Amino acid sequence: MSYMEGAIGIIGGGQLGKMLIQEGKKLGLKFNILDPSVNCPAASIADKHIVGSFYDGRKLQELAEVSEIITYEFEHIDADLLVTLMASGHKIYPSPLTLKLIQDKYLQKLFLKENNIPTPDFTAINSLEELYKAGMSFGYPMLLKLRKGGYDGKGNYIVGSEGEVEEAYVALGGGQKPLMAEAFVNYRMEISAIVARGTNRQQEVYPLSENQHNNNILRTTIVPARLTDEAAVKGREIALKTLAFLEGIGVFCIEMFVDAEDNVFVNEIAPRTHNSGHYSIEGCYTSQFAQHLRCILGLPLGSSQLIHPSVMINLLGEEKNEGRARLVGVEEALAIKGLYLHFYGKAETKPFRKMGHITIVDNCLQEALRKTAYITDKVKVLGEKGGETHE
Amino acid sequence: MSYMEGAIGIIGGGQLGKMLIQEGKKLGLKFNILDPSVNCPAASIADKHIVGSFYDGRKLQELAEVSEIITYEFEHIDADLLVTLMASGHKIYPSPLTLKLIQDKYLQKLFLKENNIPTPDFTAINSLEELYKAGMSFGYPMLLKLRKGGYDGKGNYIVGSEGEVEEAYVALGGGQKPLMAEAFVNYRMEISAIVARGTNRQQEVYPLSENQHNNNILRTTIVPARLTDEAAVKGREIALKTLAFLEGIGVFCIEMFVDAEDNVFVNEIAPRTHNSGHYSIEGCYTSQFAQHLRCILGLPLGSSQLIHPSVMINLLGEEKNEGRARLVGVEEALAIKGLYLHFYGKAETKPFRKMGHITIVDNCLQEALRKTAYITDKVKVLGEKGGETHE
Repeated sequence: MSYMEGAIGIIGGGQLGKMLIQEGKKLGLKFNILDPSVNCPAASIADKHIVGSFYDGRKLQELAEVSEIITYEFEHIDADLLVTLMASGHKIYPSPLTLKLIQDKYLQKLFLKENNIPTPDFTAINSLEELYKAGMSFGYPMLLKLRKGGYDGKGNYIVGSEGEVEEAYVALGGGQKPLMAEAFVNYRMEISAIVARGTNRQQEVYPLSENQHNNNILRTTIVPARLTDEAAVKGREIALKTLAFLEGIGVFCIEMFVDAEDNVFVNEIAPRTHNSGHYSIEGCYTSQFAQHLRCILGLPLGSSQLIHPSVMINLLGEEKNEGRARLVGVEEALAIKGLYLHFYGKAETKPFRKMGHITIVDNCLQEALRKTAYITDKVKVLGEKGGETHE
Repeated sequence: MSYMEGAIGIIGGGQLGKMLIQEGKKLGLKFNILDPSVNCPAASIADKHIVGSFYDGRKLQELAEVSEIITYEFEHIDADLLVTLMASGHKIYPSPLTLKLIQDKYLQKLFLKENNIPTPDFTAINSLEELYKAGMSFGYPMLLKLRKGGYDGKGNYIVGSEGEVEEAYVALGGGQKPLMAEAFVNYRMEISAIVARGTNRQQEVYPLSENQHNNNILRTTIVPARLTDEAAVKGREIALKTLAFLEGIGVFCIEMFVDAEDNVFVNEIAPRTHNSGHYSIEGCYTSQFAQHLRCILGLPLGSSQLIHPSVMINLLGEEKNEGRARLVGVEEALAIKGLYLHFYGKAETKPFRKMGHITIVDNCLQEALRKTAYITDKVKVLGEKGGETHE
């Protein structure tokens, strides 16, 4: 293709990488992936799979040598290695410098604060004393977080009272690992916006989505989020403002809290396509994955407009089930109009592992929610080993 | 996956096979393809590629042995070899018996006639005398056709007058190859309907599409077809009736003519997904490819309802251009809202070769047509060798 002779290299071959390749294959593009797992979801459709660790400089170098552009599908990579690659002339999007900023949750929040983007109060924690001080300032409960490496709630600790301060500090490796504390926002809704920025500085903000978590894992995304007009306007403005300050090229996810008074705070930025944006594959004119490709290829951005209200539910590995994955309830699911099933093709299931997702679109959001409620308990990912079959 | 442990085998690895795999990968399915070309479009996303001829019994056997279900993306296959495979227990959809019927255009028309489905008048031609006789009965112009193996107008001959009968007969190999003659329908529109039938006999008929050809190659598909209500009702009824009589499992395309008096005739049945159904990827709730998979896997059929009016244009290799393909006009195209670009990834372009397609969706068909007219001359597939660049 004239606009892309070479291949795109993706660090990571999970479901986000797979869905990115699926969009790229429509355009006839080629993809190389770097992933330690031979059977990772993206492997079956990638042109080349370099089996190796994300922290292995030689493997990253190998990926860079066969790829015209590099991107990544998750943020826990050695950003310094990427900076070195960038310095030697490789194109990496989003920029490793943006990645470094976002990887450290404290620096990320500091960046937001500097740009007058509302966030919960926060402070760096370098000693037990500082954590006690933060508690006095923020009150309880308060959040203690690893500055780097946390995900899906791992690396977060809710400190319920002053009596739990020491326990929390020890649990997260205080003294060894850099920590931060945050005021607890008694939010009534978690929302997010997928945002995109092209090499030509063109910007797109997707509709706000309402995200429901359980044990810190995303379960359901509802689009559009059921917000007051006031909160919806604020959320969109904050997403746009955050995007404008971020110098990154590509798709980002801005996660936000909305409290009872319709105040909106940025909780976190993810420098990549995001689980809460999966609905966009069938819900929007341009999916988050197609959009990311347009961004990094220097193509015009596509419309992020919603085609129809959408509800996405994650298919998590059933509790107590392990081993070879077995999906049940497919027939009931596919009998529903406007339901789209995505199964990532991970060989093995584990409790709460993200194995696939379902998106239901309907001109009426209430109807999409009704269909979601009907199907939620019918589709399950079971394993060959252990557990109840729930059938 | 519980509903499909093994792989699906596809005879043919062209764009139809590629788009079938693209849908199947969403579900985590595995695919083997049989195709003589190492760089065929489906190769880059197939799990296994058996390089070989469609007429090679050993290669077909090899495909069958590694595949739980076999399907095909085009009809010019040795159907007797498939019958043998079926007899030895392999699942092949649509049935090789249906394929054999459809492969022979004369038997196909006879089948339609037997079931009172309107077709142009036709007769088998086994001698020059019979062709003269047909001319007297049908008048001129009349169509002379190869009974087997024709496509994109190849194997068809328009006999303009009695003076051209002998020339036409010789040109199509009369005496050596089985021929048929057909009355010429002075149609004002060519339409088609994608139809689907599951293993559970569930049926779906897609909206009627209006097809515009040039040199017998499909250029544009407009959905919904701009028909009178009367013709639209007739077209849908005929498509449903044809599907009901066909015992096949899978997706078929029913091509029809509409004349000035709104009479509708079946022109041809294709036992597979069809170029005129590509619009369904973005235009309908369930694409023709996803539907075909549902059919052959015994899953519930999906809704064939149109989400928004759609116009599809084929991207054909530019005249006088050959060699490595180069797509121009991508930026102009992708700047259009609701435009979807598909580039099949064929290494080499040739004049009029199907290299990709574009679908434009819009809530207003007129607007989709306006966008189509704007972009048609801007997107081109050029080759490195020869020709004007048209730039």
